[in-house]
Amino acid sequence: MRFKIPKYTHPNFDTAIFKCAPNVKCKIVEKDCVAPDNYHAMSIYPEYFKINGEWVLAQETRMDCVARLNNKGKIEIVEFRHLRVGDSIIVGRTEDGSEGIYLHVSGFKDDKVEKEAFAFRGVRSRETSQTMDYDNLFELLKHEKENGYVVWVMGPAAVFSQGARDSLTKLINSGYVNAFLGGNAVATHDLEAGIYHTALGQDIYTQHSVKDGHYNHLDLLNKARKYDSIEKLIEEENITSGLIHSCIANNVHIVLGGSIRDDGPLPIVIPNVYEAQEEMRKHIRKATTVICMATQLHTIATGNMTPSFRVVDGKVRPLYFYTIDTSEFAVNKLRDRGSLTVRTMIANAQDFLQRLADNLE
Amino acid sequence: MRFKIPKYTHPNFDTAIFKCAPNVKCKIVEKDCVAPDNYHAMSIYPEYFKINGEWVLAQETRMDCVARLNNKGKIEIVEFRHLRVGDSIIVGRTEDGSEGIYLHVSGFKDDKVEKEAFAFRGVRSRETSQTMDYDNLFELLKHEKENGYVVWVMGPAAVFSQGARDSLTKLINSGYVNAFLGGNAVATHDLEAGIYHTALGQDIYTQHSVKDGHYNHLDLLNKARKYDSIEKLIEEENITSGLIHSCIANNVHIVLGGSIRDDGPLPIVIPNVYEAQEEMRKHIRKATTVICMATQLHTIATGNMTPSFRVVDGKVRPLYFYTIDTSEFAVNKLRDRGSLTVRTMIANAQDFLQRLADNLE
Amino acid sequence: MRFKIPKYTHPNFDTAIFKCAPNVKCKIVEKDCVAPDNYHAMSIYPEYFKINGEWVLAQETRMDCVARLNNKGKIEIVEFRHLRVGDSIIVGRTEDGSEGIYLHVSGFKDDKVEKEAFAFRGVRSRETSQTMDYDNLFELLKHEKENGYVVWVMGPAAVFSQGARDSLTKLINSGYVNAFLGGNAVATHDLEAGIYHTALGQDIYTQHSVKDGHYNHLDLLNKARKYDSIEKLIEEENITSGLIHSCIANNVHIVLGGSIRDDGPLPIVIPNVYEAQEEMRKHIRKATTVICMATQLHTIATGNMTPSFRVVDGKVRPLYFYTIDTSEFAVNKLRDRGSLTVRTMIANAQDFLQRLADNLE
Amino acid sequence: MRFKIPKYTHPNFDTAIFKCAPNVKCKIVEKDCVAPDNYHAMSIYPEYFKINGEWVLAQETRMDCVARLNNKGKIEIVEFRHLRVGDSIIVGRTEDGSEGIYLHVSGFKDDKVEKEAFAFRGVRSRETSQTMDYDNLFELLKHEKENGYVVWVMGPAAVFSQGARDSLTKLINSGYVNAFLGGNAVATHDLEAGIYHTALGQDIYTQHSVKDGHYNHLDLLNKARKYDSIEKLIEEENITSGLIHSCIANNVHIVLGGSIRDDGPLPIVIPNVYEAQEEMRKHIRKATTVICMATQLHTIATGNMTPSFRVVDGKVRPLYFYTIDTSEFAVNKLRDRGSLTVRTMIANAQDFLQRLADNLE
Repeated sequence: MRFKIPKYTHPNFDTAIFKCAPNVKCKIVEKDCVAPDNYHAMSIYPEYFKINGEWVLAQETRMDCVARLNNKGKIEIVEFRHLRVGDSIIVGRTEDGSEGIYLHVSGFKDDKVEKEAFAFRGVRSRETSQTMDYDNLFELLKHEKENGYVVWVMGPAAVFSQGARDSLTKLINSGYVNAFLGGNAVATHDLEAGIYHTALGQDIYTQHSVKDGHYNHLDLLNKARKYDSIEKLIEEENITSGLIHSCIANNVHIVLGGSIRDDGPLPIVIPNVYEAQEEMRKHIRKATTVICMATQLHTIATGNMTPSFRVVDGKVRPLYFYTIDTSEFAVNKLRDRGSLTVRTMIANAQDFLQRLADNLE
Repeated sequence: MRFKIPKYTHPNFDTAIFKCAPNVKCKIVEKDCVAPDNYHAMSIYPEYFKINGEWVLAQETRMDCVARLNNKGKIEIVEFRHLRVGDSIIVGRTEDGSEGIYLHVSGFKDDKVEKEAFAFRGVRSRETSQTMDYDNLFELLKHEKENGYVVWVMGPAAVFSQGARDSLTKLINSGYVNAFLGGNAVATHDLEAGIYHTALGQDIYTQHSVKDGHYNHLDLLNKARKYDSIEKLIEEENITSGLIHSCIANNVHIVLGGSIRDDGPLPIVIPNVYEAQEEMRKHIRKATTVICMATQLHTIATGNMTPSFRVVDGKVRPLYFYTIDTSEFAVNKLRDRGSLTVRTMIANAQDFLQRLADNLE
Repeated sequence: MRFKIPKYTHPNFDTAIFKCAPNVKCKIVEKDCVAPDNYHAMSIYPEYFKINGEWVLAQETRMDCVARLNNKGKIEIVEFRHLRVGDSIIVGRTEDGSEGIYLHVSGFKDDKVEKEAFAFRGVRSRETSQTMDYDNLFELLKHEKENGYVVWVMGPAAVFSQGARDSLTKLINSGYVNAFLGGNAVATHDLEAGIYHTALGQDIYTQHSVKDGHYNHLDLLNKARKYDSIEKLIEEENITSGLIHSCIANNVHIVLGGSIRDDGPLPIVIPNVYEAQEEMRKHIRKATTVICMATQLHTIATGNMTPSFRVVDGKVRPLYFYTIDTSEFAVNKLRDRGSLTVRTMIANAQDFLQRLADNLE
Repeated sequence: MRFKIPKYTHPNFDTAIFKCAPNVKCKIVEKDCVAPDNYHAMSIYPEYFKINGEWVLAQETRMDCVARLNNKGKIEIVEFRHLRVGDSIIVGRTEDGSEGIYLHVSGFKDDKVEKEAFAFRGVRSRETSQTMDYDNLFELLKHEKENGYVVWVMGPAAVFSQGARDSLTKLINSGYVNAFLGGNAVATHDLEAGIYHTALGQDIYTQHSVKDGHYNHLDLLNKARKYDSIEKLIEEENITSGLIHSCIANNVHIVLGGSIRDDGPLPIVIPNVYEAQEEMRKHIRKATTVICMATQLHTIATGNMTPSFRVVDGKVRPLYFYTIDTSEFAVNKLRDRGSLTVRTMIANAQDFLQRLADNLE
């Protein structure tokens, strides 16, 4: 099977209902960060707005944000906290065209392969067959390596074992990772493994808890602060493999958002969470596939800002979003919040990474 | 049964091993935020340092932080990021007195009641009897209401149902809560319930998903930004019950730490997570009992900064730390990281709160 | 709120589609236990068959069983293993009347209260409000005490704590339990608690693991075999409370099905699982409410044989089916198999039982 | 690394404590199935009894069973339900030799490799490194293929996906499976897949739910009863792959124990659970490695009857016992009951089987 991106079909705007629909209405922001009454909130799906008689697709959309019409007549999707006095915001809470707003959930529906391959059926659990999911993902990632932008979102479990860490190194070196989003912990554990071959003081192969092993974690953080940068730490401490080393060696973007759970943190971590969101969204704006694994916090954070589609060279394509976890609760939580296009897989991150590394050359 | 705080026994410093032990050694910080080599890292247990021939207990300790000797000869336990050039830091990685550092894990051990009541036996699961745990907790909270400082750490599940929310209101009004730590979500859902009787658009009693219900969440946040403060929001929107209203009405301290998962956020939320940690620790420094429920993120964050004891009026007493969750993984995670004095209970937050409210007048 | 059983509406059989429909066809069983080709398999919902021009409701139905027309023209719903050569079995795999078979899923639909109170909305999790679920259940059980037949299905966690065991005792003594279905373990642990105040050697109040405590379990089983009956065991060993004692004292039916996991077993346990199913179904044929808690095995076993309705004095009423567990996977598993009328609650059995006992006098 | 079975060291019976110890005492069974007071219950570890001045190892032991001295002076470990009037049973509840009973937990302790490789450290979770566990298991299974007897215990999740089913087929054909223990469900789903390429009506590759798919399950069972045997079913229906087909084609023993949850059942299923236990134990008496996956019921049942060692040609070697599940609760439950030598892995059965098939040629 050669993977093919499913075709997208725009609504037929030649029909009467669209032709007769009014232009969208806007209201003006009167206080910074506060939307006018009856503002329209975006979804993860393609939405069109009728502006000057034309139906325009809102690109780079984000769920629960608002649509701002800038002074060049372009639509920008912005978080409430970025609203400024004088901004012109689209209002209306219908989605059927009657207020000039149209939500299009079925753009990929006519594509047979897509429907069979990816349509969702019932609650997914550890008992759902994943054979095809893996096959599809292998093909997808080979395609994306040449054509897409793959964002990985990972928690500590991705680096707690030698096998997972080696698999990650291989995947990054082979070009399957364009950006990595995470927190302080995953990076800290990975670098600890790079120096001491332990994570939280436990050997990542033998599972042996080394004496005074908890100091490895603290010493690593102390060294990082001493060197002032991750790059210098890697160089001075001769770290030659792992998630962070491979990202830096391959110019893969790293965004680490701070959390109140953090020790340290590493110098690279962004302490203000809303600034961290901005940095994350920069990569989500480019993403064609997102893979989230073993972190509920970062998975939900990323899911919140990821739409179901991406416009590349003027063409609409699906934005694939995978969540991988051993817990049904974790992977299904996002779906329950409205992110209905999420593909969930129940797997230990270690197995998942190993199988990817084994099947992607 | 009348609850009695177990007695604490200091080590017998008259024995030879303590008398012969050297004073602790210190090294000087040469770069901000970087500890000298061989720094000593603190634990959750009482630790004594020999200074000028005297064994001194480090008060207000925090796991994985360092001990700074200030210029008045007092010990301060500080996070690495607060180290400044010139600070004098205790070094040494033994805990048996041989370097002037003594870790005392058995201070409460001789107390019969304590041992029987609270000692940990084996992995706790949904099948562990909790009858005594509830009885103890009822007694403990009655005691703390008069004598202690109770910090509650809660996630959204604490306010997703009318019963839980009413129970919380009652507990706060009755004086069982001194500080509440949490994130943007729990406060947002609580305030949404206060205005619309929904949480994320679902009625908190009937479970009915109201039409366009997701706008309730966004509208609440938009209103909060419009009013600029939680207090004004509550007043203008006539919110008369719930977690946030009750905290404010009873002068209970609120600390909300930001997270990259946040919508909004509410104006009260602290965007910089390390500043949020500072605010949290202010209350943990006073806490005698901490109750964490239905939030893995905030539970771990709080667990990281909470010692196993508190000094009140010169006397050492236990600092009780409870975690409540439906998931064994969540409640046991903290224990696995070394917080061995945690009392875990497997319960739905709704049941837990209801039972507390029913049994505490 | 006074609880009212929702009204049931039969299909309108006066309409043309039903009048024109053919009578059902039957085929004859040619080998014991083997259904004829194209046999019709039953569901949990009301199904009507056209026999001699009349639409007849199949009573006491069971999912995945077949409909046998006996020689008095009555429909019996039987398991495949009970088919005998010469039996007349209804065939046809449509459910819209076109083959004389009509499935009626919406009989309770018009009832407003029912719809609001019990309709299912989305995946249920620990974050679903359960306040109304409890209120409804309290009212339902008060109603059933006078008018219904309540079957309880329980696993060991129902008796591992003193509080849960006392609550059960109270509920049984107050008349809220008509039959109890379970396995060897729950009964064994309950009787161990009755003699030794332990379950698997751990005190059910203090959590203290008594010396050589695992012998308590084995000694209990050995005693039970010595006395040859549960009744004699209870008498000779002076057991005066708990699940089994209360059931026997109140003439509550007990069915214990064997499992390959069993030690022992107790003399009362049925070793052949299909004979155990027969005994269980005797009570399910009478049940108006079923409450399953803390046992995945017995919950699924019971769910497999429980329809969504019961005919009492010629009137169709709902058969309420609750599952209670701390794990979403456990409670949702049954729903995923097609048992769509299940009401799931995420709770520790101890809390659930205590709240019931506290609220039912 | 070449795998080597660790060496076992018997206790040094030349020391005074063993020489001075008395012979074991016995008491006579006075009622069938009832052990005399003070009977000794066995554990999973090697236990020695002093008989006629000689210390004799009890072979083929089973936890919670009793030791019978037969009339040839040999020790047999029997379930209580097999005791008969006149049997001579060893009594005494000490294990230090003082009553002629000695429990030897450290026989493999001196072996360095074993200790490093397999010793248990702390609670295992999804965050425990499993790289070495997989490496060890690959080596172990290659060794066992030539020298051991590998018993597999599996639940339905082992056959719900095409990948898992193909992997199983490969492992069985390659000689890595000597006996398969399970229940009705796993065999039924596997055979349904063999005929219809579905499990419970859902395609095992495409996840597509076929129309009237639940009839596939029932039709399969109906066919099996029609043919009277699995072998004839496989032949007549042209099943050419999968778990059951491969077992039969390779003369791998199959034991299926009935459960009250069963539909059907298949003709091969044993309805009496205690007879099923007997059949299971026949294979456990030969087992050198046991792998349990994706079934809590059968895993616990097997764990109950599996000791920590096996005597092969007069030599004591470890009996390796693995449990694989996505849920920490499931895999740790067995450990919590005293089966301390269990090796637990957190994995989706599909990934686990695929990785084994990929790494074992």
